[in-house]
Amino acid sequence: MIATTPNLPYYAVIFTSVRTEIDENYEKMAERMIELAQLQKGFLGVESARNDIGITVSYWDRLESISNWKHNLEHTEAREKGRKLWYKKFTVRICKVERVYDFETEL
Amino acid sequence: MIATTPNLPYYAVIFTSVRTEIDENYEKMAERMIELAQLQKGFLGVESARNDIGITVSYWDRLESISNWKHNLEHTEAREKGRKLWYKKFTVRICKVERVYDFETEL
Repeated sequence: MIATTPNLPYYAVIFTSVRTEIDENYEKMAERMIELAQLQKGFLGVESARNDIGITVSYWDRLESISNWKHNLEHTEAREKGRKLWYKKFTVRICKVERVYDFETEL
Repeated sequence: MIATTPNLPYYAVIFTSVRTEIDENYEKMAERMIELAQLQKGFLGVESARNDIGITVSYWDRLESISNWKHNLEHTEAREKGRKLWYKKFTVRICKVERVYDFETEL
């Protein structure tokens, strides 16, 4: 469930959101978006958790891949519907991952 | 609950973790670390969610602030205890935030 990502550098998209109380197809859309993201060129992995807020981090090889994914038609439609139905608010932050350490490697 | 962050550039630390089944003071430590982080120079905000995995993203003004926080004594002790007790595994990714958009600003 923790994404296995390649050597640096790569990019992370941090999507933080607060949901409305409208459930209409939300889970189905969320699953579909992860499926669809996985099919995109340059997709490296995804991590997701939600309780009070939701945080989904997707990892990508380069900015161009993120831009392509942003402009994917089905993804664009889902975002538009998200703004109308599912999300009270959200923030998207596009980041360059510069350093990584994990359970084993940290000193 | 979504962090309000200043103009770019700033930095994000993405901490992704899988918990053990050991609860021993975990919630207390997690709350204390957020309290303590908020007191550090250069801290800008934090977002956190957990179900199958936990994702905590903290935001900082510069890499030096992240390094200072990493070397904070109480934080270091909590990480060591985390490795022994609370976490099966974790990954920390230090990122430079390069672009941001939100509910209102996205086209």
